[in-house]
Amino acid sequence: MNNMETYMRPFIDGYPSYVFVDIYVTSIVAVNEKTQSLSTQVKMMTAWYNGLPLWMFYKRCGITQFHANKEMFWTPDLLIKESIKTEYGTTPSPYVQLELWEFSISIDILTLTTACSMDLYKFPFDTQTCSITFHSAVHTREELEIDSLSKAQFITKDSKKLFEAQGEWELLLIDTSRVNGTFTGLLQDLLVYQITIKRRPLLYAINIIIPVFFFLLLDVASFFIEASGPDKLSFKVTLLLAISVLLLILNDTLPSTADRIPLIGVYCIVIFSLIGISILETILVNYLMAKDAEEKSAALMEKTAAVSGRDDSVRNEQILPDSVRDENEVQISSFWIRVARITDVAFFIFYIITVVVFLSVLGKIWIS
Amino acid sequence: MNNMETYMRPFIDGYPSYVFVDIYVTSIVAVNEKTQSLSTQVKMMTAWYNGLPLWMFYKRCGITQFHANKEMFWTPDLLIKESIKTEYGTTPSPYVQLELWEFSISIDILTLTTACSMDLYKFPFDTQTCSITFHSAVHTREELEIDSLSKAQFITKDSKKLFEAQGEWELLLIDTSRVNGTFTGLLQDLLVYQITIKRRPLLYAINIIIPVFFFLLLDVASFFIEASGPDKLSFKVTLLLAISVLLLILNDTLPSTADRIPLIGVYCIVIFSLIGISILETILVNYLMAKDAEEKSAALMEKTAAVSGRDDSVRNEQILPDSVRDENEVQISSFWIRVARITDVAFFIFYIITVVVFLSVLGKIWIS
Amino acid sequence: MNNMETYMRPFIDGYPSYVFVDIYVTSIVAVNEKTQSLSTQVKMMTAWYNGLPLWMFYKRCGITQFHANKEMFWTPDLLIKESIKTEYGTTPSPYVQLELWEFSISIDILTLTTACSMDLYKFPFDTQTCSITFHSAVHTREELEIDSLSKAQFITKDSKKLFEAQGEWELLLIDTSRVNGTFTGLLQDLLVYQITIKRRPLLYAINIIIPVFFFLLLDVASFFIEASGPDKLSFKVTLLLAISVLLLILNDTLPSTADRIPLIGVYCIVIFSLIGISILETILVNYLMAKDAEEKSAALMEKTAAVSGRDDSVRNEQILPDSVRDENEVQISSFWIRVARITDVAFFIFYIITVVVFLSVLGKIWIS
Amino acid sequence: MNNMETYMRPFIDGYPSYVFVDIYVTSIVAVNEKTQSLSTQVKMMTAWYNGLPLWMFYKRCGITQFHANKEMFWTPDLLIKESIKTEYGTTPSPYVQLELWEFSISIDILTLTTACSMDLYKFPFDTQTCSITFHSAVHTREELEIDSLSKAQFITKDSKKLFEAQGEWELLLIDTSRVNGTFTGLLQDLLVYQITIKRRPLLYAINIIIPVFFFLLLDVASFFIEASGPDKLSFKVTLLLAISVLLLILNDTLPSTADRIPLIGVYCIVIFSLIGISILETILVNYLMAKDAEEKSAALMEKTAAVSGRDDSVRNEQILPDSVRDENEVQISSFWIRVARITDVAFFIFYIITVVVFLSVLGKIWIS
Amino acid sequence: MNNMETYMRPFIDGYPSYVFVDIYVTSIVAVNEKTQSLSTQVKMMTAWYNGLPLWMFYKRCGITQFHANKEMFWTPDLLIKESIKTEYGTTPSPYVQLELWEFSISIDILTLTTACSMDLYKFPFDTQTCSITFHSAVHTREELEIDSLSKAQFITKDSKKLFEAQGEWELLLIDTSRVNGTFTGLLQDLLVYQITIKRRPLLYAINIIIPVFFFLLLDVASFFIEASGPDKLSFKVTLLLAISVLLLILNDTLPSTADRIPLIGVYCIVIFSLIGISILETILVNYLMAKDAEEKSAALMEKTAAVSGRDDSVRNEQILPDSVRDENEVQISSFWIRVARITDVAFFIFYIITVVVFLSVLGKIWIS
Repeated sequence: MNNMETYMRPFIDGYPSYVFVDIYVTSIVAVNEKTQSLSTQVKMMTAWYNGLPLWMFYKRCGITQFHANKEMFWTPDLLIKESIKTEYGTTPSPYVQLELWEFSISIDILTLTTACSMDLYKFPFDTQTCSITFHSAVHTREELEIDSLSKAQFITKDSKKLFEAQGEWELLLIDTSRVNGTFTGLLQDLLVYQITIKRRPLLYAINIIIPVFFFLLLDVASFFIEASGPDKLSFKVTLLLAISVLLLILNDTLPSTADRIPLIGVYCIVIFSLIGISILETILVNYLMAKDAEEKSAALMEKTAAVSGRDDSVRNEQILPDSVRDENEVQISSFWIRVARITDVAFFIFYIITVVVFLSVLGKIWIS
Repeated sequence: MNNMETYMRPFIDGYPSYVFVDIYVTSIVAVNEKTQSLSTQVKMMTAWYNGLPLWMFYKRCGITQFHANKEMFWTPDLLIKESIKTEYGTTPSPYVQLELWEFSISIDILTLTTACSMDLYKFPFDTQTCSITFHSAVHTREELEIDSLSKAQFITKDSKKLFEAQGEWELLLIDTSRVNGTFTGLLQDLLVYQITIKRRPLLYAINIIIPVFFFLLLDVASFFIEASGPDKLSFKVTLLLAISVLLLILNDTLPSTADRIPLIGVYCIVIFSLIGISILETILVNYLMAKDAEEKSAALMEKTAAVSGRDDSVRNEQILPDSVRDENEVQISSFWIRVARITDVAFFIFYIITVVVFLSVLGKIWIS
Repeated sequence: MNNMETYMRPFIDGYPSYVFVDIYVTSIVAVNEKTQSLSTQVKMMTAWYNGLPLWMFYKRCGITQFHANKEMFWTPDLLIKESIKTEYGTTPSPYVQLELWEFSISIDILTLTTACSMDLYKFPFDTQTCSITFHSAVHTREELEIDSLSKAQFITKDSKKLFEAQGEWELLLIDTSRVNGTFTGLLQDLLVYQITIKRRPLLYAINIIIPVFFFLLLDVASFFIEASGPDKLSFKVTLLLAISVLLLILNDTLPSTADRIPLIGVYCIVIFSLIGISILETILVNYLMAKDAEEKSAALMEKTAAVSGRDDSVRNEQILPDSVRDENEVQISSFWIRVARITDVAFFIFYIITVVVFLSVLGKIWIS
Repeated sequence: MNNMETYMRPFIDGYPSYVFVDIYVTSIVAVNEKTQSLSTQVKMMTAWYNGLPLWMFYKRCGITQFHANKEMFWTPDLLIKESIKTEYGTTPSPYVQLELWEFSISIDILTLTTACSMDLYKFPFDTQTCSITFHSAVHTREELEIDSLSKAQFITKDSKKLFEAQGEWELLLIDTSRVNGTFTGLLQDLLVYQITIKRRPLLYAINIIIPVFFFLLLDVASFFIEASGPDKLSFKVTLLLAISVLLLILNDTLPSTADRIPLIGVYCIVIFSLIGISILETILVNYLMAKDAEEKSAALMEKTAAVSGRDDSVRNEQILPDSVRDENEVQISSFWIRVARITDVAFFIFYIITVVVFLSVLGKIWIS
Repeated sequence: MNNMETYMRPFIDGYPSYVFVDIYVTSIVAVNEKTQSLSTQVKMMTAWYNGLPLWMFYKRCGITQFHANKEMFWTPDLLIKESIKTEYGTTPSPYVQLELWEFSISIDILTLTTACSMDLYKFPFDTQTCSITFHSAVHTREELEIDSLSKAQFITKDSKKLFEAQGEWELLLIDTSRVNGTFTGLLQDLLVYQITIKRRPLLYAINIIIPVFFFLLLDVASFFIEASGPDKLSFKVTLLLAISVLLLILNDTLPSTADRIPLIGVYCIVIFSLIGISILETILVNYLMAKDAEEKSAALMEKTAAVSGRDDSVRNEQILPDSVRDENEVQISSFWIRVARITDVAFFIFYIITVVVFLSVLGKIWIS
């Protein structure tokens, strides 16, 4: 610190300084959809022009390797635009490697938490692309140029070789590009790493998609449960309850987003609603049947009251109230039954068509 | 540190020093309703008068860019009034940019966690406004003036351009204002950034509002389930159970607040109560009907006992205990049935009106 | 650091140094009942005697404001007895304000996490009082006196004005007191801030108290469900299940405490037990009735076997096995029915009394 | 730092240096059974020989109190063997107290997170003993001796006086012992603090033990529900479901351990299994009864077919298929009924015995 | 810092410097399957060549122990390849031990969080192997060689002796190996510690495996519930609901992985599906039976209508619609019944075989 010169940016007159940054993604530590952030463990190699003509030493003394304390030299003041938090994996090495060709190299293992705009529309069959953008804190483009040392293919290949985790995310691609940015009127060099990762969807299939699908299947099948039976309604409402339980899992996983609701949310809530509507229909059909039975017994009562003097014939009819009736009467009273049946069948057809159309459209959008 | 002068606040006699602070909100990292805190990732540009007449160098040497180690100069001692935690996204740059017009510029990427008074009354259709207030730790207004460099519109526009997240919150507006504050008798300059964010409500609609609404709908529909059937009660109590499960989600999301309970809580608990009350009514109606049946069979028993000698006529009546009866008797015994029916219908009307009024009033308050 | 004198505690011979500490609670960040800790955001003003006669400068030069780097002077070594973690909201200001009257002032925004003994007996209608105790690390009472600069009323008033959060806790009062403490045989000056906060109970009412109360109400009402009906038991056991679900919420909120179990736990478990007991009673009553029916049919069988020759009279009885019987027989066989009825009514009266007494006693203790 | 001597360990030739460490546990911040770690807030007093004959100053000048910057002297390099994380409650005091008798005293408020081997066999009626072991990083026993200044009883008493929390754990005892340890061939002095804490079990009783016990009780009672009734099975399976919900709580609390499974896990899973087995038994009994009914109706059909010519007598039997039958036939057909009954009673006795034995053995092991 | 030489790597010309690293795993703090990371508490001993011929002092002065401030010497710049976070358990000792044989020794207690590729295929009966790889930040193999000081067996033995936790993981083995790595074209020495740990599976057995197995058992047993009874369906759907609740636990534990889905997920979802399919089958069988009953009553109605003139004979048949019928008619109408029975039995056999095969195959893969 007593030697201020060592802190000055080294440069050759008229040319900007060069900084090269390579990052190798060695692990996806966490992806938080709620906070829209990505935590990656990266191996970062920074190389920058130091203006120290060490090849002279080499020529004279044959020394090929130089190392020196980082604090003795200027180090590039790189910021990461998206960074929420940067942690060193181990206490950062206090040394830099001085190369013969007038460059310094520093290697760090970092855990970067960066903001990443994630579109969860196709969750859990989604692929996310997150950027890590390096730029200088104070230097303009004329002063400092930032680039990657290795090619993107090489970085991708090397990262995959180093990649540790077998977790939820698969590393697809690392791409680099160099763009210009303007901030406070100054043109700056921006080095953008784009990390493309793909979610492994199987657990979500097991925990949400397959169970909910089964509940839908069971609801469809429940049309074949006798309409008047006591079981049908409680069967269906238990399906609703089970989906409510699975909504707890959904709530733990997804953030609330606006423009395009994630398809898995659509999937759950549409199936929830379909089951809800089919319960309403079941109640309606049951009501119509009960109404029919009521009318019948009312008609019977009137008739019985009228013929209360006669005994035997009445008796027969009374013993068999459900099955045998004068043809005339049967037609009237079973009007509601027929309405109920037609409603039931019509709704069932409508329901099946809705389900098939919904699932095929959803599936097409979702997986493609 | 050996040169104490560099640490003195630079000023021109009789005038305060000027500090300009611009913050660009680049991501809403987290909003915690329970702890009433907001975590934002911001790009912060601080510019302050340094009293170094660098334009003299420019005139003489043609040098336009100066950078220097931050530790060599006085830096403004800004505090954020609401700050709970301030973290640097990357290790803070050790350099400042020295401008020709006697100003220093420092750029930082920060993750600020600030206390924010959030009113959750309209959750999840709420808009929150959080303040980030900058003031000097020790300097009075006479010594240090703080202002924003850019206009609020520009900051809002730029923030939206930089905004990363597609998460739960949408950035609406960033506004700045400059107010006076007094602390320990000293007048201070306060620069207030007001960040207005709007919640994207869809997930909550899917996870709580729509399911609970369906449960209400099903409860209304359950009036058409035959009152005496065994299914009705278990159907309704399952609805209650399902809402209890959804209360788990509500409990995870909302903090306990006092004066005005969040409408979503009102929504859940009122519907819960309505279903609870309608179960009580169902039990009452069933009880009345059972009482009726009891009285009938009691009456029947008495009568049967009385006429136990006669055989054939009795037999008919006994076979048809529910449907045919002497007119006289029917009137008496079905008194409770009629009471039950009237209760049921009256309650249903009352229930429907309550539901409609409740939902329309709630909807009006909630979404508007 | 090269000037050791600046690190010596400034004092006037024979008198202790004075330190004044004012804390303004600006936000309750978190209250953790499980770990018995309180996180508060505070604005802390520390003023201490520095022995620098700056009024001499004032007299000579007219300068009224002095600021200097904190590292150049002695700063009081205050510890907070209850502190688990202390974080600076923003990077602490490196400057102190030097007042004319020989005092230094430092202002910090801190997030304090302090241990706090919380009594959750009346949860969620509880009021907690947490202490923040300042004392010197090494100085005795003879060397260092600690006091608050402002009066407690003023601090309370100011804190309320600055108070940010509308969260679960309401700030009631901040009180200060100065006590003597002894540690390792040395008498020390302790400055105690007592922060009294009151919980806003509404969410807990919505999520636990009201639902559980409704479940109790429904259980009471279930006495009016026909005892022999198939619905009664499944209705009641569903209530138990629903309370189990709500126990999940309770488990998330409350820590396990010993001497006095929180009333909300008593409330839940007593109602759980009451419903459990009432299910046992229902099973008993059903059993008695089934026993009665069994005995009747057994008696009938015997009788039928005996009179198997006679045809017509038997037939009548057989058709009406439940309603008409010889008076003699009726008395014997319906003994169990009567026992069941008496049990049921007696239990109901006992149950109602228990519930009323329990709820009124609980309510009295709880809310008062 | 320019004076290297101040960093040398002070000692008298031929004798080791002495360090005294007293820790007062002021709060149990957290006990994490999953990570087997204990977080405690402690007040730690370290006293060590400094070799500064300050009594000479006292004799000459009458000064009794000395304080100095910690950085100016050697401080003992103590490590805590079990420590996972050590945090200062407040920024550590930069001063040490220099005593007349050539000792330095430093007081710190620390939050220690230490690994602690916890045996959860008797959870939640368990008592845990955690060690905090101090030893020097580099010094051998010949160089540095570590001991506690106060006696264990005094530390326990004082800790209890300072103890803040009313949380899940009660502080029972703090014990100290001094043992020898060997590491890398060097004999070291180890000072072991053993902290014994006792869990307050009431919340777990409310949330798991009592509810599960009630479910067992209800299952036992369910034997008295009519075997053929529709309610019995759904009643019992709801009990299973309710226990599944409570397993969620258990899963949140307990880690997976190997050799001895926690008794609370045994309790839950055995009761779960018992209810499961009793459901299987119920299904078996119902099946036997249904088989009986089937055989009866088959026999009836055969007989009816045989006697289809005769009219009146058949009619009687057909009206009363369940109650009256030829004695001969009754015996045959009700064979399965009797098997069912015997099975039921036998299983019930076995079940009761199992439950009583299990609970009494478990209770004995658990609470003692 | 003023003496730059002390910071140079000490070496003998032509030979690399030697660094020895021993780590003793003293506790498994946490294993996070979601983030694929392992937190271990380790005691790390680093020994490196310092080039200080202290044995000369020993010879001359008889001094055997030297300690010095770490900052005065070069320390090896070791990085851990997999490290996500490194925390010191206690503030790191500022001293190193200088050995007579020209080596420095430093002892640290660290909490390492390292990325670890975990294969959860056999969860919870899995054994994981995690690597901790040490390498120099800047030095090549020619400059720095890294090795372990103690043998792997000794480290394993010692670690087990020091091992604190009785948590979810059992420490099986620590192995060391030395490999070559290339980074940026430089050959480096890598020291790999491989830590093999075994999960203790019992809690997962209690919380997931046994309950789900019981639900499967109950579903198998439910075939013996009378097909037409109202209980069967609601019984089975409650089993589905209970598994949904247990899926909540599964979701909390497992990450989503791609290539090989964890067997416990297969176990849960296959059993879930089996129960779902068996519910579908039950609905089918019930439907067939209901169809049969319908056809019968339709046939009856026709016949009754035809013979409506005749009175007595009809009456008999009508009273006994289920049991007695003309042989001819019985055969026709009970066609569907027989189809239902055959379906039921066939499905049951298929179901049992599937279950047995599935469980035995799964068990074989899982536990072996």
